Amino acid sequence: MTTRVGGIEAGGTKFVCVVGTGPEDIHAQVRIPTTTPEATLGAALAFFQEQGLQGGRLGALGIASFGPLDLHPGSPTYGFITSTAKPGWKNVDVVGAFRRALDIPVGFDTDVNGAALGEGRWGAARGLDTFVYLTVGTGIGGGGVINHQRMHGLIHPEMGHIWLPRSPDEVPSFQGVCPYHGGCFEGLASGPALHRRWGGQAETLPEHHPAWALEAHYISLAISNFIATLSPQRIILGGGVMEQKHLYPLVRDEVRRLLNGYIQAPSILERMDAYIVPPALGGLSGAAGALALAQRALEGGG
Amino acid sequence: MTTRVGGIEAGGTKFVCVVGTGPEDIHAQVRIPTTTPEATLGAALAFFQEQGLQGGRLGALGIASFGPLDLHPGSPTYGFITSTAKPGWKNVDVVGAFRRALDIPVGFDTDVNGAALGEGRWGAARGLDTFVYLTVGTGIGGGGVINHQRMHGLIHPEMGHIWLPRSPDEVPSFQGVCPYHGGCFEGLASGPALHRRWGGQAETLPEHHPAWALEAHYISLAISNFIATLSPQRIILGGGVMEQKHLYPLVRDEVRRLLNGYIQAPSILERMDAYIVPPALGGLSGAAGALALAQRALEGGG
Ligand SMILES: Nc1ncnc2c1ncn2[C@@H]1O[C@H](COP(=O)(O)OP(=O)(O)O)[C@@H](O)[C@H]1O
Ligand SMILES: Nc1ncnc2c1ncn2[C@@H]1O[C@H](COP(=O)(O)OP(=O)(O)O)[C@@H](O)[C@H]1O
Ligand SMILES: [Zn+2]
Ligand SMILES: [Zn+2]
Repeated sequence: MTTRVGGIEAGGTKFVCVVGTGPEDIHAQVRIPTTTPEATLGAALAFFQEQGLQGGRLGALGIASFGPLDLHPGSPTYGFITSTAKPGWKNVDVVGAFRRALDIPVGFDTDVNGAALGEGRWGAARGLDTFVYLTVGTGIGGGGVINHQRMHGLIHPEMGHIWLPRSPDEVPSFQGVCPYHGGCFEGLASGPALHRRWGGQAETLPEHHPAWALEAHYISLAISNFIATLSPQRIILGGGVMEQKHLYPLVRDEVRRLLNGYIQAPSILERMDAYIVPPALGGLSGAAGALALAQRALEGGG
Repeated sequence: MTTRVGGIEAGGTKFVCVVGTGPEDIHAQVRIPTTTPEATLGAALAFFQEQGLQGGRLGALGIASFGPLDLHPGSPTYGFITSTAKPGWKNVDVVGAFRRALDIPVGFDTDVNGAALGEGRWGAARGLDTFVYLTVGTGIGGGGVINHQRMHGLIHPEMGHIWLPRSPDEVPSFQGVCPYHGGCFEGLASGPALHRRWGGQAETLPEHHPAWALEAHYISLAISNFIATLSPQRIILGGGVMEQKHLYPLVRDEVRRLLNGYIQAPSILERMDAYIVPPALGGLSGAAGALALAQRALEGGG
């Protein structure tokens, strides 16, 4: 468990690269802007090569990436970012680039499955076997662990794209910002949706603005659906929009109201404060998750 | 694998009790109406006791039951039906009744997780690791297998109770029939919802009735949400309402339309006929699943 490994939280705006053994033992860290695959992957690679020379060889690398991804070990495009809309990043062999150059095991998963894994190992989901990690930011994504295993299946979850009922308090002209679905969860509740609906950056809207009750309502509808579908033991809710800390109590109350007593579990009826929680690792969930992915790869767990 | 075991599909209207080794090798079968726990459990027990005497001792029993259920092995109410609205059946120790009297291992799960297990072992989900079983009948329920394991978590899924957008084609005065949520999936698309909205039993509505396009739309919204949340490799869609076989092509087309190319998987884009399918075991999914639960219990898998 204490082998020095590398981790990458590969995001659409930046790559966070770390070396260490866990979130409390980070030996080195660098942030690289996400520009072209050549430049970004090249800079990340240079960082890990230098770390391997200077601080001691890395046992493995973990990558928690924006997607969609190919996560099927047998597939010819395993380890690729596949059909992303991000210019230049379609069909990029992320895992291969590092595996060839570093010649170490590489673990790979979505950013949100990675963050879930990190929170499960070191953070807010320790000791649980079934939980969800949800991020509400530029996009909305969700991942999770079910019976101690990460969610993959056909591809991997895309929880931001569920359909939700439109609120009667919705701005009548607002149709949502998802290029595929208009008013899906991401279309209605992402940072860009807040921006488009209210005309200002989400971070500039004051706490008493009606934006937040509506935002809490949509997040709560989605969480109610995830509870009904997955029956998680806890939901970790993060991302830039959740920097508005006053959203947490609004969401907890609204989820309870929406479930309306149907799910008879003390976690929901009595201990909601411990049921819907912020990430315990804060901004490090993803990078820590990448380290956990590396450690799994070292143990042969992919 | 060929030990003779017992299985119960415990439904709100009838208990189907079987003895055998699988759906193609059923030695005996009986249907018992669901009245009071004493009468129904008593009649089921008598059946299995007689089968044990006449045809040879049963190695184990499996129960796939209506719920909600307590599925946590360590809990004092493990094996109970818990908070059901069905008169007389709240807090009934189903597993205990059989374990005490028969003194054999008893496997236990929801009706839909059981049906998923049966379809995974002998039916439409053979060879898959991640899939969903959905039933649209008097109620709507869903269960599934993720990475080869049944879905439990906090309690177990209650997939019928997700929130969906109301169709613009909805009958304006119709508010849904769910006593907890009004217009959740079950509230809008169960057999009783069809009855209440259109004023006649679902089985009497002709194929060209507008009921079916609306029904297919709601089922497709829900399935799109389950795809985005769980990423299943296949969805098995059964229950009384799906006796309307013309619904399958409507649902497949509508799911593809709703996903709108977002999920780039050949299963969805090219092989939808094999992606959303009826149960291969027909009316035996649940009872077969109960046999599979018994076999798991025999192997010590709970
Ligand atoms: N303090 C804040 N309050 C509200 N919204 C915020 C805040 N900080 C960031 N956001 C919004 O969150 C989004 C960025 O999300 P973030 O999770 O930081 O990154 P990303 O999703 O791009 O990985 C932007 O739409 C931004 O407007
Ligand atoms: N052929 C049919 N066409 C449409 N609806 C049907 C048909 N058969 C049964 N149903 C409806 O399905 C419901 C019963 O569902 P079923 O799955 O058979 O049982 P349950 O859900 O009670 O276990 C009833 O609401 C009934 O109206
Ligand atoms: Zn969308
Ligand atoms: Zn409901």
